[in-house]
Amino acid sequence: MARKSKIQSDRPTLVDVAREAGVSAITVSRTIRSPEIVSERARRKVEEAIRKLGYTPDPAASALASRSTSTIGLLVPSLTNNVFADVLRGVYEGVEGTRFFVQIGNYRYSALSEEGLIRNFLSQRPAGLIVSSMDQTPAGRKLLEEAPCPVVQIMETSVDSVDMSVGFDQLEAVRAAARHVAECGYRRPGFLSARMDPRAQRRLAAFREVAAAHDMLDEARIITTPQPSSVGMGRHLLEQLLARAPETDAVICNNDDLAVGALMEAIRRNIAVPEQLGICSYNDIEMARHMVPALSAVATPRREIGRRAIAMLLAEIEAPGSVRERHIDLGYELVVRESTSSR
Amino acid sequence: MARKSKIQSDRPTLVDVAREAGVSAITVSRTIRSPEIVSERARRKVEEAIRKLGYTPDPAASALASRSTSTIGLLVPSLTNNVFADVLRGVYEGVEGTRFFVQIGNYRYSALSEEGLIRNFLSQRPAGLIVSSMDQTPAGRKLLEEAPCPVVQIMETSVDSVDMSVGFDQLEAVRAAARHVAECGYRRPGFLSARMDPRAQRRLAAFREVAAAHDMLDEARIITTPQPSSVGMGRHLLEQLLARAPETDAVICNNDDLAVGALMEAIRRNIAVPEQLGICSYNDIEMARHMVPALSAVATPRREIGRRAIAMLLAEIEAPGSVRERHIDLGYELVVRESTSSR
Repeated sequence: MARKSKIQSDRPTLVDVAREAGVSAITVSRTIRSPEIVSERARRKVEEAIRKLGYTPDPAASALASRSTSTIGLLVPSLTNNVFADVLRGVYEGVEGTRFFVQIGNYRYSALSEEGLIRNFLSQRPAGLIVSSMDQTPAGRKLLEEAPCPVVQIMETSVDSVDMSVGFDQLEAVRAAARHVAECGYRRPGFLSARMDPRAQRRLAAFREVAAAHDMLDEARIITTPQPSSVGMGRHLLEQLLARAPETDAVICNNDDLAVGALMEAIRRNIAVPEQLGICSYNDIEMARHMVPALSAVATPRREIGRRAIAMLLAEIEAPGSVRERHIDLGYELVVRESTSSR
Repeated sequence: MARKSKIQSDRPTLVDVAREAGVSAITVSRTIRSPEIVSERARRKVEEAIRKLGYTPDPAASALASRSTSTIGLLVPSLTNNVFADVLRGVYEGVEGTRFFVQIGNYRYSALSEEGLIRNFLSQRPAGLIVSSMDQTPAGRKLLEEAPCPVVQIMETSVDSVDMSVGFDQLEAVRAAARHVAECGYRRPGFLSARMDPRAQRRLAAFREVAAAHDMLDEARIITTPQPSSVGMGRHLLEQLLARAPETDAVICNNDDLAVGALMEAIRRNIAVPEQLGICSYNDIEMARHMVPALSAVATPRREIGRRAIAMLLAEIEAPGSVRERHIDLGYELVVRESTSSR
């Protein structure tokens, strides 16, 4: 239907109704098909717009809309660490044995590239879309809002999301890492982060907040880079941190690649982990627990996010409007291993 | 054109000609558009089939074929280690600034799933396809042969490939690892491998061959599993190897996840690497060089494979038949670091 709106016609479309009502196209569609699941307020606005524009559902358009394909589009910002590979595993578990195929678009942390991919995917009439961020360009956001298919946003969860969302509270998860480090008795923690996308920036803000509350914030110990994350980058950032702030006694790393790199750099320098330097990781991909010493980490529910996202999407494809719980917070877990300890 | 063939019609199609001539549809297409790049023998067969069937190019079909989209499909067997992420990086470098979008299908080492994805991608009229294996099902292979777009097979290179190929000699690369271990003076090497897909099996055969030639083959030291590769699996496989063959003095790992895991298990057991146990890895993803000790490895040209694959594909999309060097062997490199040493 997003496509339909581009064709000049006298007849008002579903998208025209959505614009008039100030809601998303999917809400209009739901108001028509399953009004019971639409909020009283949204329903009234849509009904008013329908009356005002004299809209009648176009059977041809419905037929067109129902001709969606077996493709589920999945947009991720990166495939170079295992964070999204774990999400994918959950998605594939849910797709197994169904008629659907997953196609992945990697927008490499570029919102413009994401917008292009959204357009490209929508041109193929996907059955549904899973997108990994809340930080689309305005045009990208609009494309999602008008998408003629269900959309699940993942990794974070918000009622502001376009349609459905499943994730966890990223800020609370970073706060848990900072509190853990403080509770162990480390007093001069640093923070390492690469690829400062909006989500990484929000996480840094959460670290600052808790560090300040524990009177252990020092900007000299915050080392970030816009460059991509990697194990080598983790080594490099720890090197910078120790040069700038040799008093550092712990480090929170914004992902596991950086934490593994920081650990390797500490080993090279004969710095004892966790005695001289505590290391707390974020995400907890598979390799983190196998390091020596094993990395403490905030574990994020990536596989479960994938599983739930595809389950919501398939339910909504099967029976539009059937998903009641549209915003799911799966929580996180602090896993204390060997790289941090009470002192 | 592959689609065209499914429509009943009296008129012979390009695919009928291909069948009659015993060549691929793309070869027929090339014989018509750029006969100078087709081998004398293939050209004669095609011309004979054209005469026999009374084939004339269908302008409607040509128009249809030219309506390909901006999508380039990329099929990979896995996204859970960085091997294909590095290939992707090369692909994205080549796509940057063009009108093309890359969509990825992950067939998770299942040839049947690969076949389904090939079908799904072809239904979207992609501009081109990059596929990561030579081991399609017969139906999958046929779909690729009849694909109305250029196809590049990557990772290995072979004149038997469907259309174009870029990769390296995987067997020669494993042989180099085995020879290196022998030349260091290790005499009782083991071999660890997970996920025994056809390519992994070919690599194991190459190891056996060189080990036998150096009189250091012992089947008890070959530990494989059909399960997926991971760092934890590397630890587990080394544990099994040392239980079965405690005399083992070196180990060749079929990829970097396993090598990192084997290294961590050796460190846990206070086994000195490289003195008591040499470790040689395969692929050399980014983290391998940052381990302590740094891993020796056969480095495979993954990023360059991605770059060359997309370059060949774009050239062929732009000007069909223009790519002369259709099968490219990029070689490999033995990188000796700290985890192996002369003894």
